[in-house]
Amino acid sequence: MSIRRIRVIGSGIALPSQETTCKDLDAKLGLAPGTSYQQTGIRRRYLSTEETAAELAARACCAALADAGLDWSDIDCLVGTSATMDQALPYNAALIHAELNLCKRRTATFDVGASCLSFLAGLDIVSYLVECGRYHNVMFVSSDIATFGMDWTNLKEGAIFGDGAAAIVIRRSFEYESSSILSSKMETLSAGVEFCQIPAGGSRFHPRRMQIPIDPLSTLQMNGKAMFKLISEEMQRFVSELLLSADLTLDQISKIVPHQASQLALDHMIRRLQVPPEKVVDIFKDFGNQVGASLPTALHTCLSGKQLHRGESLLLIGTGAGLTMGGMVLVY
Amino acid sequence: MSIRRIRVIGSGIALPSQETTCKDLDAKLGLAPGTSYQQTGIRRRYLSTEETAAELAARACCAALADAGLDWSDIDCLVGTSATMDQALPYNAALIHAELNLCKRRTATFDVGASCLSFLAGLDIVSYLVECGRYHNVMFVSSDIATFGMDWTNLKEGAIFGDGAAAIVIRRSFEYESSSILSSKMETLSAGVEFCQIPAGGSRFHPRRMQIPIDPLSTLQMNGKAMFKLISEEMQRFVSELLLSADLTLDQISKIVPHQASQLALDHMIRRLQVPPEKVVDIFKDFGNQVGASLPTALHTCLSGKQLHRGESLLLIGTGAGLTMGGMVLVY
Repeated sequence: MSIRRIRVIGSGIALPSQETTCKDLDAKLGLAPGTSYQQTGIRRRYLSTEETAAELAARACCAALADAGLDWSDIDCLVGTSATMDQALPYNAALIHAELNLCKRRTATFDVGASCLSFLAGLDIVSYLVECGRYHNVMFVSSDIATFGMDWTNLKEGAIFGDGAAAIVIRRSFEYESSSILSSKMETLSAGVEFCQIPAGGSRFHPRRMQIPIDPLSTLQMNGKAMFKLISEEMQRFVSELLLSADLTLDQISKIVPHQASQLALDHMIRRLQVPPEKVVDIFKDFGNQVGASLPTALHTCLSGKQLHRGESLLLIGTGAGLTMGGMVLVY
Repeated sequence: MSIRRIRVIGSGIALPSQETTCKDLDAKLGLAPGTSYQQTGIRRRYLSTEETAAELAARACCAALADAGLDWSDIDCLVGTSATMDQALPYNAALIHAELNLCKRRTATFDVGASCLSFLAGLDIVSYLVECGRYHNVMFVSSDIATFGMDWTNLKEGAIFGDGAAAIVIRRSFEYESSSILSSKMETLSAGVEFCQIPAGGSRFHPRRMQIPIDPLSTLQMNGKAMFKLISEEMQRFVSELLLSADLTLDQISKIVPHQASQLALDHMIRRLQVPPEKVVDIFKDFGNQVGASLPTALHTCLSGKQLHRGESLLLIGTGAGLTMGGMVLVY
């Protein structure tokens, strides 16, 4: 079975209070006005200096819940789909459950992790459980704060990130609704495992194991060019196979919501897939790459902006650290 | 649908090379011989000083693959089910995929995280995908190194941990096989979210955000008594509901494989559920609490030791940081 009769019924986002513009970045780095925008493609982004990932996640969940017109008693499963951890232990969904003051509500919670594609992987996997009636209303939430200690002087690979959170609620479709996941696909090309990473944070470079300072290993390191090369060799085939199993052509897709990796990656995808730019949801200039929160934030922007109508087809697509490619074709 | 026709077809474990006995611990802490064993219930355990979590995971995977009589080309999905991260990014399964030199094999990979119950959560969730034919042979692997910087002087809560990895392979049951998951259940009681945690490692206590040293926040902190109290109020009801939905009584269960939280927790569970001790797989004295690797290591011990026969029923049960309770009834 590949089709899962699920329906997105609510979405919401949350942003840190600190907004930073390209003008701020130019000033900070002593660059001529316009330089950082021209290099990064980012007009503004949001940086968390005070908020925790669980706080942002909880705000996004509440927004999505209100959008779905539901109450917490309706949600029987909360899935954490961030790319990064809030704490090493416990897992994100438990911390978010606590942050939401659901302490006495016996929800099922767990995380699904696949770097920037965690939301896509979570939606893909858990849709089977919703299809089968195991859970009825599932909340997915991605919340990433990955900008600490970023190298802002590296405009192409360091200064492209922003923080944020996004949440999506799904349920099973009713008989008379066409909403469904038509196909989905994930593939890991671990030849690129080192192209995007935060080395520390876990057991490999644990503070108690290291003789050298851990700080430099605690920031996101990206080899954009190498990622780009590996992905561009694979993406066209991957998308073709995904569409084939959905029995649709790219022309029949109304909207494409990609992971917002970088302006270059978005532009390249548009050229490579030969799709009209207006078909692609591009929020990069207003948020930057929000790591795991990027894809659901772009989906929320698309849905809340009424860019997609019920019954229309949607392609979710992206690549994340791993390297992992993921894609999904849905009828909204 | 609650029954999923899946079959465990292989298992394997891996241990760090450094074995530490209770005698070593007595000597290290200047205690009278026998003190640490009497207090912790651990005769020996394994501590990783050199190995990475991905290395241990890869070794466990290879052992499980050989046990299943399969080749890597048969595995279409690799699920990371550790409690802790190897690196902050990418996710564990991608690092393990790379460690296994599967760089050119386009396996689907992702993590499922629920602290010490990650394996149980992963098996529960992904079983639906195997039932539906999305994946055919799935490898689950848990690998945790959580002993760095442990407070060994705290015998009851610090000195109970050990490192290790375990892997399990499943496929869909054939028509003539009775192997299946009869019921499964997860509940988070986040009133206990702070009872077991490693505060640092993620964005909340990030080295670049902190004014104080991160080291003390990077070790596992456990309030055993508080966990114990919250769990003991809930466990009996939880197990009853789980068995009810499997339409079995505890008498009909051949073996119970619990998370190896502590000797106290294991003994308490035996008393509380009123089960014969020989029905409970207890490997605590030889491994300690291996965090996420505990449950699949205990399952491997049970299966490889032929303690369970095909067609017999098995109860997997445990509690993890979150606090989250999880359980599953399987026919092996």
